[in-house]
Amino acid sequence: MKIVKIMFVCAIMFFGSVGLVGCGAQSDNVQVSGAQGESNKIYRWKLITTWPKNLPGLGTAPEKLARKLRIMSKGRLDIKVYGAGELVGAFEVFDAVSQGTAEMGHGAAYYWRGKIPIAAMFATVPFGMNAQEMNGWLHYGGGLELWRELYEPFNLVPFAAGNSGVQMAGWFNQEINSVEDLRGLKMRIPGLGGEVLKRAGGVPVALPGGEVFTALQTGVIDATEWVGPYNDLSLSLHSVAKYYYYPGWHEPGPTLEAIVNKEAWNSLPEDLQVMIEMSVRAINDDMLSEFTARNNAALRVLIDEHGVELRALPDDVIAVLRDAASDVVAEAAQDNELSQRIYDSYMGFFSEVRAYHAISEQAYLNAR
Amino acid sequence: MKIVKIMFVCAIMFFGSVGLVGCGAQSDNVQVSGAQGESNKIYRWKLITTWPKNLPGLGTAPEKLARKLRIMSKGRLDIKVYGAGELVGAFEVFDAVSQGTAEMGHGAAYYWRGKIPIAAMFATVPFGMNAQEMNGWLHYGGGLELWRELYEPFNLVPFAAGNSGVQMAGWFNQEINSVEDLRGLKMRIPGLGGEVLKRAGGVPVALPGGEVFTALQTGVIDATEWVGPYNDLSLSLHSVAKYYYYPGWHEPGPTLEAIVNKEAWNSLPEDLQVMIEMSVRAINDDMLSEFTARNNAALRVLIDEHGVELRALPDDVIAVLRDAASDVVAEAAQDNELSQRIYDSYMGFFSEVRAYHAISEQAYLNAR
Repeated sequence: MKIVKIMFVCAIMFFGSVGLVGCGAQSDNVQVSGAQGESNKIYRWKLITTWPKNLPGLGTAPEKLARKLRIMSKGRLDIKVYGAGELVGAFEVFDAVSQGTAEMGHGAAYYWRGKIPIAAMFATVPFGMNAQEMNGWLHYGGGLELWRELYEPFNLVPFAAGNSGVQMAGWFNQEINSVEDLRGLKMRIPGLGGEVLKRAGGVPVALPGGEVFTALQTGVIDATEWVGPYNDLSLSLHSVAKYYYYPGWHEPGPTLEAIVNKEAWNSLPEDLQVMIEMSVRAINDDMLSEFTARNNAALRVLIDEHGVELRALPDDVIAVLRDAASDVVAEAAQDNELSQRIYDSYMGFFSEVRAYHAISEQAYLNAR
Repeated sequence: MKIVKIMFVCAIMFFGSVGLVGCGAQSDNVQVSGAQGESNKIYRWKLITTWPKNLPGLGTAPEKLARKLRIMSKGRLDIKVYGAGELVGAFEVFDAVSQGTAEMGHGAAYYWRGKIPIAAMFATVPFGMNAQEMNGWLHYGGGLELWRELYEPFNLVPFAAGNSGVQMAGWFNQEINSVEDLRGLKMRIPGLGGEVLKRAGGVPVALPGGEVFTALQTGVIDATEWVGPYNDLSLSLHSVAKYYYYPGWHEPGPTLEAIVNKEAWNSLPEDLQVMIEMSVRAINDDMLSEFTARNNAALRVLIDEHGVELRALPDDVIAVLRDAASDVVAEAAQDNELSQRIYDSYMGFFSEVRAYHAISEQAYLNAR
């Protein structure tokens, strides 16, 4: 058992340089017949997602992943992708992969906050790290190792597998001119962001993407966040809300996750494991590139063709939300010892990277 | 010839969604024996780099790439990595891979500016796009296709393979308090940035990394840029210059390149081609994560242990450099018709993404 655990830690760390010291020799050791599993065996896997089938960016990424893996493995790793509701519901992905109903899933860790409050930190934290910073923490700051430790009792191996970049604050049926306008505001907003809104006087509502349009149209909610112009345009949210607010304080760079059932993972030979590891990192890079490239054209369509009114959240509203966020995130850490370690790791890294980005990324954007 | 060219375009575009429309069916077609090449043949390649062997981040990335490819291919793609000067000199990488002396190279496109002036745009542009924006342009904005077209006559297939993020403005032996302080300043600075410094009154000097320390120590140069704290610390530049300036206006997110000799690329079966494609994208993601995670700790060592003085470039100095940069970049485009198309593509994408990031990434960093 001990040896198996050490080998597992090596396997999950060997892309990061930390792991290279301890596991480099093993990684370099090419095994013709594979570490486990059989060399010519065909692994037919199901990949279930929290997204509508082929939703731009979010839903097309797992399809690409499966296609690339099929080519690289010459059909030995044959993954079929299911959209939300095709095999299980959007919010049942975690349990279904945990139980082995499907071998793999694609979603976001904050969807499992009801089960594991601290999980949201592996997706996004209100007023926290952006995409580049999350990638730094996960892959070179100890984040991924903690994520693996958190999911281990659930029989799951998580990977970072996509990011939308800074999201928009969302769609509103009325202007937000002061903190007063947040009081009683019914808004679809998941994760820690919803809890922050509640502290600021709002009423957070949890709804899967497919139900947002109707809820906003019928007045069940007054506002909703979704992703950004590229995704929001495809959901036609502009036809049921007039005001589009920025910046998205609640999701400053959400990491999406690929989760693999642990027995399924362990059954793979090493070459197929590394193909998955490389492909999810490529998808991680690719999705952010897609959103980065497509958002502004979609925003222009929203403004020029659909008459959407773009608005900035007032500074005092941002300040109230920022204060509430600090409390909400610290409270999530009090769940247990592991939650506290995750919180400390995130906050320690954030403090460092934020200081550096103040004189690099941020200083540059303000100077160019 | 026509068919070969179309297949080549498909092969290079199929990760981007543009290519999925035209080439998706082909990409899904799993070939047990491979498109070309032989299924069990071992390809022994040489990968030459412009970096000192195992230089943190820049030099360790190609080593990781080779190690991962060896595991995924079960030894069928066996790549040996050479540091600068081991097989050819740092600035001979482009020609050596073009001629087939080595099958693969790792460096940065601005090193080939003497041969192809516009190539620098595929690395970095003074006051231009940052890492996230470059990735968007290359993979979803038509950039990669233009890069392939530019390198095609040189028998090379380029890939984005790493990024350092916004660099530091560099090390100076004297304070820069006004534009006057740039006059006559001898500074090691490559690419378009060097030309910009010249317009602002400075004297740009081209030197490989290995010669920078001595040149600064002996007064051959008064200043140098290199990368950022993580890399600069390992070169001990703090012991030969007192002032460390930010932000790095000249290299706001340089893309590093992997280049593959075209015949070598075409000789590979499709599974190995896709392994390379996925691995270089993973490295592209990984290197930025490494720099993002390591820079601030290195900066603290520089300041706290070595007494380095951190300084911001004055606004009026930034303004003069910004004006000069605009002219220099536009002039590089006048070389020929393809250069103009590359310039137009870059500038068109930059205009869009900059507008969007003003209300997303930048607005968020300023609000958090």
